[in-house]
Amino acid sequence: MSTAASTTTDSNFSAESYYATQPPPTHLDHEVRNVREFVQKHANAGRNVVLVTSGGTTVPLELNVVRFLDNFSAGTRGATSAEYFLKEGYAVIFMHRQFSLQPFSRHYSHSTHPFLDFLEIEQDGSQADSPARISVTEKERAPLLEVLTAYKAVHTSDLLHTLTFVTVNDYLWLLRAVSQELAVLGRRALYYLAAAVSDFFLPRQKMSEHKIQSGKGSLHIEMDQVPKILKPLVSEWTQGQAFIVSFKLETDPSLLVPKARQALARYGHQVVIGNDLHTRKHQVVFVSPSAGRDNEYVETWIRIEPSQDAVKEIEEDIVAELARRHHLWIDTSLSL
Amino acid sequence: MSTAASTTTDSNFSAESYYATQPPPTHLDHEVRNVREFVQKHANAGRNVVLVTSGGTTVPLELNVVRFLDNFSAGTRGATSAEYFLKEGYAVIFMHRQFSLQPFSRHYSHSTHPFLDFLEIEQDGSQADSPARISVTEKERAPLLEVLTAYKAVHTSDLLHTLTFVTVNDYLWLLRAVSQELAVLGRRALYYLAAAVSDFFLPRQKMSEHKIQSGKGSLHIEMDQVPKILKPLVSEWTQGQAFIVSFKLETDPSLLVPKARQALARYGHQVVIGNDLHTRKHQVVFVSPSAGRDNEYVETWIRIEPSQDAVKEIEEDIVAELARRHHLWIDTSLSL
Repeated sequence: MSTAASTTTDSNFSAESYYATQPPPTHLDHEVRNVREFVQKHANAGRNVVLVTSGGTTVPLELNVVRFLDNFSAGTRGATSAEYFLKEGYAVIFMHRQFSLQPFSRHYSHSTHPFLDFLEIEQDGSQADSPARISVTEKERAPLLEVLTAYKAVHTSDLLHTLTFVTVNDYLWLLRAVSQELAVLGRRALYYLAAAVSDFFLPRQKMSEHKIQSGKGSLHIEMDQVPKILKPLVSEWTQGQAFIVSFKLETDPSLLVPKARQALARYGHQVVIGNDLHTRKHQVVFVSPSAGRDNEYVETWIRIEPSQDAVKEIEEDIVAELARRHHLWIDTSLSL
Repeated sequence: MSTAASTTTDSNFSAESYYATQPPPTHLDHEVRNVREFVQKHANAGRNVVLVTSGGTTVPLELNVVRFLDNFSAGTRGATSAEYFLKEGYAVIFMHRQFSLQPFSRHYSHSTHPFLDFLEIEQDGSQADSPARISVTEKERAPLLEVLTAYKAVHTSDLLHTLTFVTVNDYLWLLRAVSQELAVLGRRALYYLAAAVSDFFLPRQKMSEHKIQSGKGSLHIEMDQVPKILKPLVSEWTQGQAFIVSFKLETDPSLLVPKARQALARYGHQVVIGNDLHTRKHQVVFVSPSAGRDNEYVETWIRIEPSQDAVKEIEEDIVAELARRHHLWIDTSLSL
């Protein structure tokens, strides 16, 4: 086997030692100030705020980055869900991998649905020198108008705040900083952690300065484990107040539920959404702690018909169910 | 050092052993048939054809891919150059990494210049129930009209054929297949190999079936070296007829020219374009064999003023110079 996890333990960074030894991204302070303003505004308006993370993180192998390890994720789940959270009345912080899909523009992928294909040039026939007009083809007009209307409304109301990350280090620093800003919302903050975050990283101190030369032999890479960040997120940064949803993506379906339960037992948050790489557009499983019973868990499957693909997105049902549970979570605190 | 190239030699695949042991991508035959048609059509019309490769390749670590090694490349060089090759009268095969930048749509990145931002909804005031119109903002109208006009013309004339790859394996199989189709053009074929191709790969036989579990320890990856494909491309697949341009990207500028010369000495092709990661938008160096003198090389620098960035793309000059050299290359054969 060329890919294998060893059992050495000296590579385990705690969250604390991670932040003490790995440098923050540039512009972090600037980003945090903007988040603070956004959160404050919606907190004042009595609006619930969701943090949606989306897309994969990279692990650069060199300081002058040419090569990196990446996690498969186009960002479909996150970008799609963000739109439905907006429809549910949430203000959304969309923290995504640079160039991954985004709400609204996701409908117009340059590869599969390029917008240049549905623009037409209309030459006004009456005057030879009148300027050409650009119009939208008949077929695309109605759906584009719908997307565009929603997009404009969201931007006018400042309901969507976008943050970008590239590396797992960017992600870890941003997540901590944003969670500290969201703390003022208490139970009204929802975390929807759909990003595909690397389990491994290469500490700054071990990186090559320049591009690794290929030479004559094979490449050996040895990486350290990324600290399990859900632990401090749940117990320290959000002080057990926020409603936290994490994701498990597996390719072996038999691992889904056991790994989701393990995560809940370990971190003590509210929901793990399990999805299998091959069926994730048609079914997911919500695993959550059974109310009042230690070490017992409830599984709820959400499914759509594969034949319904074109007219129905599973994220609509996922988000509706989470919004319902989040409202109960907020109400519970009021009745305490 | 966690990243280091060993000097073992048992991991060196020859091109021959690579293709004998690694499986071709699905749909390869279908892709090849389309390329054949495209090449035949333009060969008949007496048009020169360029193959532009663009974007980075991935190296999957698992058969059910979740994690992969990647090479940094947005695909700017390739996508931009493809537009200038079209302007120079070439038919272009654009072979690019899925979701990397493409000619024309590259002007409208969803992240930096989203097209939804420059569309407006116009409600016809005269009739309440008349349909809303979508129009382009004043500021964006002229540049969009220019891009759109070029895009439509290229598609109407079928001058651009797009192929996509994801993994380094897809790339290697496609490159060989396309080169075999381009062989009918002899000297009229130009290769512009701007893709950032991995030097390493994980043979199918060594890949994990499922997602590597993070467990408690660090991750070790050991990769084999990708065969140097320029060798058979130059001497076998194109039989020394095509004009072949390869690229070297380095982060240490002192390595640029020596490594470019080394590549020319080793593979015997026409031009290596050297670029440094940090200055690549403002300067590149063409390294080519000195006519009639063994082991001597000519360096030609192409530079634009960084202040000219907004109005001038360096690819315009790169492509103009290559088209000039390619025409000489074709003429030389006529006078033989």
